[in-house]
Amino acid sequence: MLCVNVELNDRRYPIYIGENTLTNPELYPLNAGQKVMIVSNPTIAQYYLETLTHTLEKIGCVVEHVLLPDGEQHKNLDSLNLIFTALLKGNHGRDTTLIALGGGVIGDVAGYAAASYQRGIPFIQIPTTLLAQVDSSVGGKTAVNHELGKNMIGAFYQPIAVIIDTQTLHTLPKREVNAGLAEVIKYGAILDLPFFNWLEEHIDKLVTLQTDALQYCIARCCQIKADIVARDETEKGDRALLNLGHTFGHAIEAHLGYGNWLHGEAVSVGMMMAAVFSEKLGHLAPQDVARIEKLLARANLPTVSPDGMQPEEYLPYMMRDKKVIAGKLRLVLLKQLGQAYVAKDADRDLVLNAIRCCTQTH
Amino acid sequence: MLCVNVELNDRRYPIYIGENTLTNPELYPLNAGQKVMIVSNPTIAQYYLETLTHTLEKIGCVVEHVLLPDGEQHKNLDSLNLIFTALLKGNHGRDTTLIALGGGVIGDVAGYAAASYQRGIPFIQIPTTLLAQVDSSVGGKTAVNHELGKNMIGAFYQPIAVIIDTQTLHTLPKREVNAGLAEVIKYGAILDLPFFNWLEEHIDKLVTLQTDALQYCIARCCQIKADIVARDETEKGDRALLNLGHTFGHAIEAHLGYGNWLHGEAVSVGMMMAAVFSEKLGHLAPQDVARIEKLLARANLPTVSPDGMQPEEYLPYMMRDKKVIAGKLRLVLLKQLGQAYVAKDADRDLVLNAIRCCTQTH
Ligand SMILES: NC(=O)c1ccc[n+]([C@@H]2O[C@H](COP(=O)([O-])OP(=O)(O)OC[C@H]3O[C@@H](n4cnc5c(N)ncnc54)[C@H](O)[C@@H]3O)[C@@H](O)[C@H]2O)c1
Ligand SMILES: NC(=O)c1ccc[n+]([C@@H]2O[C@H](COP(=O)([O-])OP(=O)(O)OC[C@H]3O[C@@H](n4cnc5c(N)ncnc54)[C@H](O)[C@@H]3O)[C@@H](O)[C@H]2O)c1
Ligand SMILES: [Zn+2]
Ligand SMILES: [Zn+2]
Repeated sequence: MLCVNVELNDRRYPIYIGENTLTNPELYPLNAGQKVMIVSNPTIAQYYLETLTHTLEKIGCVVEHVLLPDGEQHKNLDSLNLIFTALLKGNHGRDTTLIALGGGVIGDVAGYAAASYQRGIPFIQIPTTLLAQVDSSVGGKTAVNHELGKNMIGAFYQPIAVIIDTQTLHTLPKREVNAGLAEVIKYGAILDLPFFNWLEEHIDKLVTLQTDALQYCIARCCQIKADIVARDETEKGDRALLNLGHTFGHAIEAHLGYGNWLHGEAVSVGMMMAAVFSEKLGHLAPQDVARIEKLLARANLPTVSPDGMQPEEYLPYMMRDKKVIAGKLRLVLLKQLGQAYVAKDADRDLVLNAIRCCTQTH
Repeated sequence: MLCVNVELNDRRYPIYIGENTLTNPELYPLNAGQKVMIVSNPTIAQYYLETLTHTLEKIGCVVEHVLLPDGEQHKNLDSLNLIFTALLKGNHGRDTTLIALGGGVIGDVAGYAAASYQRGIPFIQIPTTLLAQVDSSVGGKTAVNHELGKNMIGAFYQPIAVIIDTQTLHTLPKREVNAGLAEVIKYGAILDLPFFNWLEEHIDKLVTLQTDALQYCIARCCQIKADIVARDETEKGDRALLNLGHTFGHAIEAHLGYGNWLHGEAVSVGMMMAAVFSEKLGHLAPQDVARIEKLLARANLPTVSPDGMQPEEYLPYMMRDKKVIAGKLRLVLLKQLGQAYVAKDADRDLVLNAIRCCTQTH
């Protein structure tokens, strides 16, 4: 088992990464007699709810659970309210610990519920998708969607522990695993060339979920994200680098309608566009663009624009991005492989040009 | 004009208390070009929305507003969502300042919206009820109700400024003014004998809303609350003293159905019960109980149990209080006038006895 610590101004908390952490009572910062409420959904609960409940009961906890409907479309105030109702019906006070058992959706909703119930109760993350394990469970961002915007309502709220069981990935659809790998490759590309090199050697082991490679990979990603978060807890500076490929990717997601492509798939193509753009600016060598493309392809991720989406269709979406300030398009680009920066006023013709290079021609 | 500063660990903010602060652009920590969203309700907006909008426009702000339905029954997630919808429709980002113009209900909902919109935007309180001016606008507690419990969902979130215009109290129903005076008297009773003495001299001026007395009184209350909050921002210790009379009071509110008696009226009777209890314990002198009773009566507040509510009916409600730990009733009592303490295991027979002494006999 590996452990990464997240260091904040006034607190720290551990992220445990191991093979059977779901069944190891010693990892849980809970005592006999304490009350816990597990938040999950039916898809995940069928595999892991009983196991987790059993582990917590071994500690001596009083365990209840509440299941939310599965899906991004339920990441909203209604699901949030289901959690509050369960907490109030069970007479839970400020000493109850909320546990998120699930992917990024469950983690984000449960985290915001924990931040808000009686103005804050303890919270543990047990992420069960690769994306949640390397990204959403680390950093303390919690949110629900509004019908007029994604992740518009939420809080910065840190868990007391993150417990990652790599075994849970074996029930995750392969496509979701691969989408998670897009974020993994992103960490290498923006900040960590040695890790990128390591990924080139081990990507097949990750795709096939080999435990040792997975553990090392997840721990490395958590460490990179934890370092960024420690420098920038409430997202004023450095965190921006984590958005490599995301502005292009959001255009794809919005154009196709959320849910058609997975987030990681859209980000994969977006990273290619950012890489090509960086090459056109003279920063990134052509062979490094090729390395990124090859690694993404080996993770079974798309590297070209979705069928039928025209290059001209990207910019209107991109200009609506939160990162647009006074009409200027801010984009995360690469100075070189393993070193990202924020371009404050990206030239639109070059953007279009880069998008064209990543568009299928029939 | 008077000013009280609230000192927190890592920030401070001013509370301005004056006669025409609504029309004084200099008090607002806002610059030309900044966007603001005023949150209010129709009752309050008819009197003050135009004035405030005009003042903010003088600064050069871009001003929008959203009105919530009036009433405690609308202090919920639906009203919260109305604010989010208005913010999103108007394309507001993290640099928009939210302004609460209203009583405690508007302040609590708007404060929680400010804490949650895009995980936190700047917030200004303009409280327009006496209760909000001396109590709810100070301290950073924000909340909405759940159908299963009051104030169960919320955040600790501090404003960047509180701006109090004593003139607004002239349109407030007298009964609401008096209810606010119950909380004022509470501050004197729990922590500040000189202020209690001052109140005995000036209560008639407060009831008739004389400006100088009002300003001094509000500033003093804000100072007392700010001091407590500075010592205990997230409510782990000292803040408990602010609950003098509230455990009894909540029983009355719950028994009559929320909204029949005003909160301050129930607290007034609750303070009498706590005072009588303290006397029975040998702490408070009988003449001090009489002083409290007289002061409350001069503020036109009730000092005996509502018609028809039996003494035995209090305890079941009181035992459901958040302050009950392991079946032990915690009550705020008085060591002497101006000095409160928390009794950790109040004797139930004595409680009943004290309630009986404050019950009308026909
Ligand atoms: N808070 C942050 O910092 C942050 C960062 C990135 C993404 N996010 C959010 O994360 C969400 C996406 O998360 P996600 O990709 O984990 O999606 P998800 O939570 O919707 O999970 C994907 C699917 O896999 C299922 N699932 C989860 N674990 C499983 C398992 N072990 N076995 C079988 N099925 C399983 C889920 O029920 C769901 O159907 C988005 O809402 C996004 O906004 C948040
Ligand atoms: N956050 C805290 O620390 C805290 C502390 C105490 C109470 N509270 C909350 O405050 C709320 C009660 O606040 P309240 O007593 O101000 O009630 P309120 O906000 O409902 O206002 C009372 C009534 O007066 C009207 N009104 C307000 N200002 C007016 C004015 N100047 N002229 C005419 N009408 C006016 C309102 O529209 C309302 O109808 C409760 O929800 C309570 O939970 C919060
Ligand atoms: Zn992402
Ligand atoms: Zn009160």
